[in-house]
Amino acid sequence: MRVLGIDPGNAICGWGVIERAGSARFIATGTIRPPAALRGPARLMEIHTRLLATIDAYTPDAVSLERSFAAINVQSAFKLGEARAMAMLAAAERGVELFEYNPTDVKLTIAGYGRADKRQVKEMVRRTLGLDPATPLADDASDALAIALCHAFRARQPRPGAVRAAPARIRPRANPVGAS
Amino acid sequence: MRVLGIDPGNAICGWGVIERAGSARFIATGTIRPPAALRGPARLMEIHTRLLATIDAYTPDAVSLERSFAAINVQSAFKLGEARAMAMLAAAERGVELFEYNPTDVKLTIAGYGRADKRQVKEMVRRTLGLDPATPLADDASDALAIALCHAFRARQPRPGAVRAAPARIRPRANPVGAS
Repeated sequence: MRVLGIDPGNAICGWGVIERAGSARFIATGTIRPPAALRGPARLMEIHTRLLATIDAYTPDAVSLERSFAAINVQSAFKLGEARAMAMLAAAERGVELFEYNPTDVKLTIAGYGRADKRQVKEMVRRTLGLDPATPLADDASDALAIALCHAFRARQPRPGAVRAAPARIRPRANPVGAS
Repeated sequence: MRVLGIDPGNAICGWGVIERAGSARFIATGTIRPPAALRGPARLMEIHTRLLATIDAYTPDAVSLERSFAAINVQSAFKLGEARAMAMLAAAERGVELFEYNPTDVKLTIAGYGRADKRQVKEMVRRTLGLDPATPLADDASDALAIALCHAFRARQPRPGAVRAAPARIRPRANPVGAS
């Protein structure tokens, strides 16, 4: 199973692709940083275009997206909703199933502790994927890999008791627009 | 000048097209209501596809979008941000300039009163566009026409003193992806 994890953001959108057949294997990761000169609609279009290209390049079986309910302000929620929408739309357009996990589930799955900090999550992502500690790994790229790993582990090892851990399964339409 | 006004929403997305050359003329209006069975990504794709089709059908010179800062909760802001993003992306993809107005500006421009209610705004939309009072007009369609009229009047009659009334002008890129 190949999973594309996305850590959505208007300034920086992290992404990471992993493959799981038994153990998890690192495929690729990166960040989308639209130039500061791009405003509103053009920024979103840049994120959308780059995410579509990433899906086309790595042909994931599933997209795993962070679903944040953090008590940020309304204005931040608008911005984050806009960036999240680009990931949701790209997945639907390519007919790839989307799964959403909240940050606590991701941390619990990766670090075994729902309040793990970014450093701990990054350390576990490196260890799980056997990444060289010397290789640079941006925070947003690490978060995206963690979100991808979360889906890979949850989908393979369902925990019937953990209701909140269940992915929000959203089926794309049979004939998605733009599907190749 | 032909303007497409959009009142974004995840459940109902209103749109309205008007033309202004001297007085304002009604062209078309409608609402996009994705079926209840469509969830998350598929809902957004439906809104995006329908908005692109509307832009292609009516070839507006500008898209006018409501920019709400109302004190709704974070969860509502996420949903609204996602729907707004579909309008922003569709405009950018077709290379149409996007302008945003807050609800007070729209009401002030249409009804002469920033706290006008939906009924008053609808009455003024009907009167301005010479619509038959017997013709049904959905709230979201009326709001979208009001947003379109707001841009048409503001763009033609700039009020240098009213700083808050200035549209947030966002230039699309020179070669938008998907532009026809």
